Amino acid sequence: MENTLSLAKGLPDPLLPANSRSPRHNSISSAEGKAVGFVLVHAGAGYHSESKAKEYKHVCKRACQKAVDRLKAGALAVEAVTAALIELEDSPFTNAGMGSNLNLLGEIECDASIMDGKTLHYGAVGALSGIKNPVLVARRLLSEAQKGKLSAGRIPPCFLVGKGAQQWAVSHGIPPCLSEKMATKFSMSAYRRNKRKMELAEKVETERCQLKRGRQSNDSDLESLGKVKAIMADGEENDSACLDTVGVIVVDQEGNVAAAVSSGGLAMKHPGRVGQAALFGCGCWAQNSCNANPYSTAVSTSGCGEHLMRTMLARECSSALQSEDAHQALLEAMQNKFISSPFLASEDCVLGGVIVLRCCRCAETSSDIQALLVEFLWSHTTESMCVGYMSAQDTKAKTHISRLPPGAVAGQSLAIEGGVCRLGSTSD
Amino acid sequence: MENTLSLAKGLPDPLLPANSRSPRHNSISSAEGKAVGFVLVHAGAGYHSESKAKEYKHVCKRACQKAVDRLKAGALAVEAVTAALIELEDSPFTNAGMGSNLNLLGEIECDASIMDGKTLHYGAVGALSGIKNPVLVARRLLSEAQKGKLSAGRIPPCFLVGKGAQQWAVSHGIPPCLSEKMATKFSMSAYRRNKRKMELAEKVETERCQLKRGRQSNDSDLESLGKVKAIMADGEENDSACLDTVGVIVVDQEGNVAAAVSSGGLAMKHPGRVGQAALFGCGCWAQNSCNANPYSTAVSTSGCGEHLMRTMLARECSSALQSEDAHQALLEAMQNKFISSPFLASEDCVLGGVIVLRCCRCAETSSDIQALLVEFLWSHTTESMCVGYMSAQDTKAKTHISRLPPGAVAGQSLAIEGGVCRLGSTSD
Repeated sequence: MENTLSLAKGLPDPLLPANSRSPRHNSISSAEGKAVGFVLVHAGAGYHSESKAKEYKHVCKRACQKAVDRLKAGALAVEAVTAALIELEDSPFTNAGMGSNLNLLGEIECDASIMDGKTLHYGAVGALSGIKNPVLVARRLLSEAQKGKLSAGRIPPCFLVGKGAQQWAVSHGIPPCLSEKMATKFSMSAYRRNKRKMELAEKVETERCQLKRGRQSNDSDLESLGKVKAIMADGEENDSACLDTVGVIVVDQEGNVAAAVSSGGLAMKHPGRVGQAALFGCGCWAQNSCNANPYSTAVSTSGCGEHLMRTMLARECSSALQSEDAHQALLEAMQNKFISSPFLASEDCVLGGVIVLRCCRCAETSSDIQALLVEFLWSHTTESMCVGYMSAQDTKAKTHISRLPPGAVAGQSLAIEGGVCRLGSTSD
Repeated sequence: MENTLSLAKGLPDPLLPANSRSPRHNSISSAEGKAVGFVLVHAGAGYHSESKAKEYKHVCKRACQKAVDRLKAGALAVEAVTAALIELEDSPFTNAGMGSNLNLLGEIECDASIMDGKTLHYGAVGALSGIKNPVLVARRLLSEAQKGKLSAGRIPPCFLVGKGAQQWAVSHGIPPCLSEKMATKFSMSAYRRNKRKMELAEKVETERCQLKRGRQSNDSDLESLGKVKAIMADGEENDSACLDTVGVIVVDQEGNVAAAVSSGGLAMKHPGRVGQAALFGCGCWAQNSCNANPYSTAVSTSGCGEHLMRTMLARECSSALQSEDAHQALLEAMQNKFISSPFLASEDCVLGGVIVLRCCRCAETSSDIQALLVEFLWSHTTESMCVGYMSAQDTKAKTHISRLPPGAVAGQSLAIEGGVCRLGSTSD
């Protein structure tokens, strides 16, 4: 994956965003492989400090390798997706599984979902505690549902939450895990910092109310308010890393696609809050090509769950990818269906990111066998997004921390990058 | 609402379904009103026995009246929707709130959601226990989210589940309710019947396995298997009423739409199972007209949650309603996006129903003031669906139990009916 090839076809004038929008990135790489599949992962759209960049890249690399190992062993996309996602969940640096954000009560509650583009089945869990790898439960729900009805004609569930989800997992052989073991030094210290921040915020609010009630402000009031605000602003910077949901999309040898996503949710969320990672159409999407759709597509999202839910961003991106120019289609989807979405009209800062791929068969020049052409992209409105990708032919994964260009405003601008990869048939 | 007017424009040949499909119903009524709004409710798509028909109609009537009372008092659509839905939840005959289906453990866990077409905000709860009116919590989540961020810049939740949802509700002034008080004689006896059915089903399965293992079957084996199957078949008929999710759609004086849905979920569901009633795009949808969409649309669904989730039926119907002929658009959506959906390819029986409305302003002949033209429809693949509707000008609601035509196969055929209603301006 060394060559650089721009997929960019030029941004039409009417779409050129006003001052605050960033110009897109277009460092797009291309890859050639006679391989049995391709994987693209993300370790979240949020803020990745330079100091943590190495760790994020490492875990993305390992996750890609896991998927490729499974693909080489003949696994289908949905299995490879699961293997890579488990690796991402197990990292203490990501906000998923181990090391997830803590909620208001200091507990871990995870969301995860998976979709199989071949069968279009979907499995999801929400607000799940006490299971090390939430994606395993989502995966098991998917495979159980594919077996058909339960006893007495009951329809199997595809979405379970809370304690019931945990009980179902354990009764299906997935071992429970003490929640305390899933918290890390980092997540605990973030929790304490956030708690302090909330207390300060409430103090600010109280002082503001007192000032409003007509009490004359004096120097001491203003000084105190100023101090609190400064601490709050500092806190904000520290916490912008807290959106690091993880996700994986894969295409296998047969051209099947699959997608998965897993998240610890927003820091200091209310117990029971479920975000996009659990929701059909919002957290991930995978759909093999069919009569109506020339491309197989897979999408995984990251960012602020409420924004991603209310825009159904995964499904919107998948639909958009059926149009001719993938890069342009994703750019327009991120602009019109996310940043400028009527569903988020009241939000001045829309935070999210996606990884997408689409593939189609194309004729080989030297034989009757068709190769798979995979186009892959990532885009985000957050400060940064960490991604990794690998074809089964590569010796190691490529990783990258994509950042908004200097001066661009997070939540109002976007970055978009990607590449292409041709997967030859195994019989080449 | 006495006149009968057919909206039917004729079914194009390519869409004419093969033998098993039913011809559509087209008894469509029209109504004229100088009123301040319109409401359409459903008490579920499922099976409504003649013996219970009166009760179902009564509760629909009362629900419509509640919405109209609120509309007349100047309430917006989202308030009127909530008032009507509370009435439906409070009925012991519907599978929502009081009288909800019991889960595997004999507990009540409810799903509900609401959407405001004006702001496009959405609130939802899943697997919620111990709250008499789940829609009240969904409504409160929606209104809290509209207030903007929480302390320390936290984003307010729009979807809460389980115990956390219950705690949030109580902390926001919604009183808790003992679960025992929400179970009814009917739901308890259905639970005992279902439990017996499951035990029998497991017995059948065991016997089948023993026969498969090569043990010679004898007359006694076959006799026992026959008995069990007969009881199972009997049970199936009794339980087909168990999909009676309820829903409401409303348009108010200003032309704002809102939609809501509430459900106790499938009988004998696994604890923690969440169905379509909680899911964005699946349970309900409401969207005011805008530049891109000439019509305001509102939809509420009922039926098998997993089928409605995986097809995102509420949102699909809303999109379809933007095309010229509402009746034809809904018919095609139900056929192509539900019964024949690629997402349900493995299902031989697709169970669900929808109520929909769309409205647009049309010029009054006698003045500059524009009237609202409301087209409303219901469609279902279940044996029957109970609906009620009323404009604010009517003295009482009209109710109807729509049934598949004789011989039509539930899960493979559909019925579709509806009407039109012109709402004059209040200053007429």
